[in-house]
Amino acid sequence: MPAIDLNSDLGESFGAWTLGDDVAMLKLVTSANVACGFHAGDPTTLLSTCRSATDLTVRIGAQVGYRDLAGFGRRFIDVAPRDLTADVIYQIGALDGLAQVCGSAVAYVKPHGALYNAIVRHREQARAVVDAIRAFDDTLPVLGLPGSVFLEEAEKAGLRTVAEAFADRAYTPEGTLVPRTTAGSVLHDPAVVAERVRRLALDSTLEAIDGTVLAIAPESVCVHGDTPAAVEMAAAIRKLLDAEGVTVEPFV
Amino acid sequence: MPAIDLNSDLGESFGAWTLGDDVAMLKLVTSANVACGFHAGDPTTLLSTCRSATDLTVRIGAQVGYRDLAGFGRRFIDVAPRDLTADVIYQIGALDGLAQVCGSAVAYVKPHGALYNAIVRHREQARAVVDAIRAFDDTLPVLGLPGSVFLEEAEKAGLRTVAEAFADRAYTPEGTLVPRTTAGSVLHDPAVVAERVRRLALDSTLEAIDGTVLAIAPESVCVHGDTPAAVEMAAAIRKLLDAEGVTVEPFV
Amino acid sequence: MPAIDLNSDLGESFGAWTLGDDVAMLKLVTSANVACGFHAGDPTTLLSTCRSATDLTVRIGAQVGYRDLAGFGRRFIDVAPRDLTADVIYQIGALDGLAQVCGSAVAYVKPHGALYNAIVRHREQARAVVDAIRAFDDTLPVLGLPGSVFLEEAEKAGLRTVAEAFADRAYTPEGTLVPRTTAGSVLHDPAVVAERVRRLALDSTLEAIDGTVLAIAPESVCVHGDTPAAVEMAAAIRKLLDAEGVTVEPFV
Amino acid sequence: MPAIDLNSDLGESFGAWTLGDDVAMLKLVTSANVACGFHAGDPTTLLSTCRSATDLTVRIGAQVGYRDLAGFGRRFIDVAPRDLTADVIYQIGALDGLAQVCGSAVAYVKPHGALYNAIVRHREQARAVVDAIRAFDDTLPVLGLPGSVFLEEAEKAGLRTVAEAFADRAYTPEGTLVPRTTAGSVLHDPAVVAERVRRLALDSTLEAIDGTVLAIAPESVCVHGDTPAAVEMAAAIRKLLDAEGVTVEPFV
Repeated sequence: MPAIDLNSDLGESFGAWTLGDDVAMLKLVTSANVACGFHAGDPTTLLSTCRSATDLTVRIGAQVGYRDLAGFGRRFIDVAPRDLTADVIYQIGALDGLAQVCGSAVAYVKPHGALYNAIVRHREQARAVVDAIRAFDDTLPVLGLPGSVFLEEAEKAGLRTVAEAFADRAYTPEGTLVPRTTAGSVLHDPAVVAERVRRLALDSTLEAIDGTVLAIAPESVCVHGDTPAAVEMAAAIRKLLDAEGVTVEPFV
Repeated sequence: MPAIDLNSDLGESFGAWTLGDDVAMLKLVTSANVACGFHAGDPTTLLSTCRSATDLTVRIGAQVGYRDLAGFGRRFIDVAPRDLTADVIYQIGALDGLAQVCGSAVAYVKPHGALYNAIVRHREQARAVVDAIRAFDDTLPVLGLPGSVFLEEAEKAGLRTVAEAFADRAYTPEGTLVPRTTAGSVLHDPAVVAERVRRLALDSTLEAIDGTVLAIAPESVCVHGDTPAAVEMAAAIRKLLDAEGVTVEPFV
Repeated sequence: MPAIDLNSDLGESFGAWTLGDDVAMLKLVTSANVACGFHAGDPTTLLSTCRSATDLTVRIGAQVGYRDLAGFGRRFIDVAPRDLTADVIYQIGALDGLAQVCGSAVAYVKPHGALYNAIVRHREQARAVVDAIRAFDDTLPVLGLPGSVFLEEAEKAGLRTVAEAFADRAYTPEGTLVPRTTAGSVLHDPAVVAERVRRLALDSTLEAIDGTVLAIAPESVCVHGDTPAAVEMAAAIRKLLDAEGVTVEPFV
Repeated sequence: MPAIDLNSDLGESFGAWTLGDDVAMLKLVTSANVACGFHAGDPTTLLSTCRSATDLTVRIGAQVGYRDLAGFGRRFIDVAPRDLTADVIYQIGALDGLAQVCGSAVAYVKPHGALYNAIVRHREQARAVVDAIRAFDDTLPVLGLPGSVFLEEAEKAGLRTVAEAFADRAYTPEGTLVPRTTAGSVLHDPAVVAERVRRLALDSTLEAIDGTVLAIAPESVCVHGDTPAAVEMAAAIRKLLDAEGVTVEPFV
């Protein structure tokens, strides 16, 4: 029976500012990419999200990012590799501490935002992230874009790599994400997005922004969680996958 | 044979700003209170200090503090207990991650600066810190001021408590520290300070600022590490303790 | 004809996190307390709020606060007076720069959150804030709680003081605000709140949480702006004041 | 008689961390590039540096940078132009407020670190900085690298541009700075550096790292101020310029 993992970015509130409905999303996804405090997520928020994830038996991943609260980690920063390695270890350790307190633990790592995009091609930063993960715990799987330098370096380093696709993002014919600054980069229709995920899970294909059909066999699909509409979209995806007999379960 | 532990605040540089000579101090003390990023210590600094501590077989403690880089954690912040608990878990986890990467681990916890002083009397914050440590790892010892509400709550919670004295700080007749804002609160003469430590180790007494003789039997003595003079002072203390036959070794 | 000023806290979004609907509120109030970046408000947000305020001919005030993004300025910080003075000058200057670019300027100062509450009684911090304002521009009026040490010190220093009341906050019989942590401290019914403002404007009285009738003749009433309900509440207040013939206009 | 302006980066301490000897440098230079809090400089430090500059009749410039305390503004950040414009206005306004309180004012703008280097070529960010300065006060001169896109855009916008050279930095044959990560990028011998400044002031030439002689006629020369050696170097420069009859005075 076909199966797929659904992951979502959670724990992204900060102090008085809330973002997304973590509990609602945790009822729909199987992997929670929890922020680690550098781009979002104060410790109280993170602890609460880890607790909810544990209660709902959702796996916790460390969503590591650039140190940039004002930019929400969405701006490339030319961090030196040795600093990036230390930053990533610090973030994973912090989240793991909070997760352990809840009876869980960090189970995988997924870079966030501009860091995610940078290490599709930026080999030095990709290696720096890989070095951090390997040093912290070389059994931790990493989520990333298929074909990225990050997954390539992770594989070379002996890490378990998990290719993912984005449910609601447009793709270039080359298989990379259309930048957020381009019109049409983010899809908003739950039915359209659910159908894309169904096709990914059953046919391992995805239609790029120009109509090109891409062959992608992701083990995980990312569903955004930071808007009220996001919950509705995730629910639509789950409903369609259930109807089509696709099991939603964590990657192994 | 009489024995005492020497602890010092390290890892307090931040980015381009350096503070103290960690390697020099690590050759003189037996317990390193390493900052955790909230009042000082960027991840690169912390990783480097953890590495040096591990190489020199010095034990690493988590020096947790208020989230206040601009104030260096030296200003009381009226943090809600549940936020403080999460902040402390986050900090211990982050430092433990870095320490583990170096082949060590967080071996004890010592609050920093204004937090240290607040929880001498502030029961809610004291409990919040104790809750965090117990949740993270209830075998971790805590360093604190003898007679403080913090040590009292830690004991109640079943944590191992370690009473400490300050080598270079003046004491009130009540056994608390004379505030930094008071003249004479910090002692600068290495010979005077070394003699105070000798007396603490051998006689379990300390002279308060008004001449009162206090009975204090600390298991650890704090030596400051943030100035060039600090290294000289720590060296003078070690030299005198060696000459007097006092073993400098970690508390058990 | 009776008249009253309505003020509201605006510009409190930060990066990816939005809070409140500034444009909607600016159509209802006459004085905008714009955050200055220390407790909330990234420069892009502040510039945008200053522009909207200028377009809608609403006066801009500097809502200065403690340096505490994670706590939204709602936690007391024991800042040394000279540091607080510098912090306040920095914040007013920054906001004034943004306001000037929009063709406006900082027209008054209102402390935010925990700082506001602290200087009801904390004389040293009250003086530090007054010193900052007087040094920056001694013609700037200050908004504060009637009877506060802050307004007392401001008057002594020759500043124009403006007593304000809070539309949606419960009062103690002593005329101070019931702390947010107490049940019933914040009122939510627009009709009830509007009636309180009407009474303040026409009768100069306010009912405390225990039923005591307080004599308060505020020149300005604070309407919160950080929730969707806040816009509705402000609209209800304006509607009732219009119906009762109370002019809503800036204090002079 | 030949004349030159000497400028230096000051106000770069932060809280408990000190950097450089501002007062010593202010006795040697004619223009003080004072940090604005985004890469360095807490308000207390900035106020103190502005006061010393005013007392010593040294002109104050706003040294604006990326929002990156951990990286000291030395890492490129891909900030969106509209955010960068708001960030720069905020910084200039904040410093101007502090300078005005001291009886001075921001008299020019010089970008810092990675921002300085980025806008040698990055047209969008260069324009964003120029937009900010023009909006704040279009009579403010800007300091920058000769041939940079920044000075080109500033000129187009009608700003007064001031070409500067670096006393202690190696140059490429193309007239840009050798990156700090390259060996030999920073010169340390006071005699060598002083001779380079003399030659710049009298012959308008500078020798690049490969021996190429560059024609550069700077109106200002930057002398670093963040090390004890920096004071010695600045003193050596002033002494040689005095001996050679070169007047050290602010650019007009």
